[in-house]
Amino acid sequence: MKLRRSGRLVDMTRYMLQHPHELVPLTFFSERYKSAKSSISEDLAIIKEQFEHQGVGSILTIPGAAGGVKFTPMMNENEAKKLFEEIQEVFAKSERLLPGGYLYMTDILGDPRLMNQIGRLFSSIFAKTEIDVVMTVATKGIPFAYAIATHLNVPVVIVRRDSRVTEGSTVSINYVSGSSKRLQTMALSRRSLDAGSNVLVVDDFMKAGGTIHGMISLLEEFQANLAGIGVLVEAEGVEERLVEEYTSMMRLEVDEKEKKINIVEGNYRSYPERLLRPTDYTIE
Amino acid sequence: MKLRRSGRLVDMTRYMLQHPHELVPLTFFSERYKSAKSSISEDLAIIKEQFEHQGVGSILTIPGAAGGVKFTPMMNENEAKKLFEEIQEVFAKSERLLPGGYLYMTDILGDPRLMNQIGRLFSSIFAKTEIDVVMTVATKGIPFAYAIATHLNVPVVIVRRDSRVTEGSTVSINYVSGSSKRLQTMALSRRSLDAGSNVLVVDDFMKAGGTIHGMISLLEEFQANLAGIGVLVEAEGVEERLVEEYTSMMRLEVDEKEKKINIVEGNYRSYPERLLRPTDYTIE
Repeated sequence: MKLRRSGRLVDMTRYMLQHPHELVPLTFFSERYKSAKSSISEDLAIIKEQFEHQGVGSILTIPGAAGGVKFTPMMNENEAKKLFEEIQEVFAKSERLLPGGYLYMTDILGDPRLMNQIGRLFSSIFAKTEIDVVMTVATKGIPFAYAIATHLNVPVVIVRRDSRVTEGSTVSINYVSGSSKRLQTMALSRRSLDAGSNVLVVDDFMKAGGTIHGMISLLEEFQANLAGIGVLVEAEGVEERLVEEYTSMMRLEVDEKEKKINIVEGNYRSYPERLLRPTDYTIE
Repeated sequence: MKLRRSGRLVDMTRYMLQHPHELVPLTFFSERYKSAKSSISEDLAIIKEQFEHQGVGSILTIPGAAGGVKFTPMMNENEAKKLFEEIQEVFAKSERLLPGGYLYMTDILGDPRLMNQIGRLFSSIFAKTEIDVVMTVATKGIPFAYAIATHLNVPVVIVRRDSRVTEGSTVSINYVSGSSKRLQTMALSRRSLDAGSNVLVVDDFMKAGGTIHGMISLLEEFQANLAGIGVLVEAEGVEERLVEEYTSMMRLEVDEKEKKINIVEGNYRSYPERLLRPTDYTIE
């Protein structure tokens, strides 16, 4: 299909957005549109300028025969802060504190638009980390894991807490929940994770970190490597944290007497060099 | 920010893709780019032509003061068939049959790019159905549900099979699994579904339909309405199906003696009027 610049820009923008972290050879586009590589390069310069100006992400051009163009989704600090404030408002809307110190987040985790943006934020933070797979534990970590994995363009593996795993033979470990001190089990299907994989471990909520610590123990069983830890909400005031280095978006403060909660920013902005610089323009 | 046409096309394409099924007033774009509405209309005509030509989706313009523009993700029959064939190849790659007649699909469900395309296919099929929420049951239905909900721009609710629900008070029902005839329980957090909601019920795998039938019973408890049923893979040769009208993408044929499986197309193409017409051009 021979296309004019306007048509190419629409199609290339869509293509790049839907193929993040993927090296696309320039010949792919020049054959697709029956256009000269020089025209394609000009198109890409326009898209790159827009994406970077708006903080959507960066477009990297790698020259040479094995080269091409690669889109990395990013989020700038302004937008990340706006996203945090939007979620903070959702948190304020209704009663959140559940028995056992749990936090009601089903409405937030169930909103694909919010999760998509949260995924872009975490993929931005881990954009320069080598990641082959995102791991989480069922059930509530799953939307968070997919949102990140979609932007990193890597698969998701889901650890189960029950033994009713219908995925063939499994590797299971026992671990001690950090907050309740109870012995628990988690299991992962043997064929779902390759040895040597670099794994980003994520969960929607972390108290003492026992669950995440359990997943790290599982990684060892599979001879896989820990590439990073991402947490949507961490609980404050934990005496003994089982996990040291992690990135959290939000921190939960609980006033037990007043039965009130407060959501403040997590530590995600301590890694500003991983994010795009703030711009004068915030995307919506 | 004042933008030229080329910059506007990049930004509008991104914006429309990320806000499906949402009515965007033309004034939003004209204020965003400090451009005349007539220019915005011309931009949208270019995007519309590209999207429809490539089967990405349709762009509907609603005139008048309360009007605007709406992007509906679609998938044409050619592309749907290509997607089916791609998944069929993945199925053929390794041993899939697990004890109990289960099917190993973790690699497919764990691939965000495949799930994203599957989600676009189902959102295309249900594009004209009024849907407020997508419901599924934990665990393996979750990625399927999010993929569809993202393209329909509606929230997801997740029914749990266990009682360890940490989401506040729940409504639970007992149901009989259609294939194993065992009594099982499923539960949904009370505040996660409003009365009167139109619910698309989905699951990754359906044998006799007991689980989906259970979710329909739950809908009644919540005074919500069944809007449709979507299934990724259905098992063939089920004597008594508990669910009548559903849309499936794939059908599993099992040769028990030979321990071999075969994946064929489900019934999704019996609704061709819901899909875009085939074009000469297939997107990747």
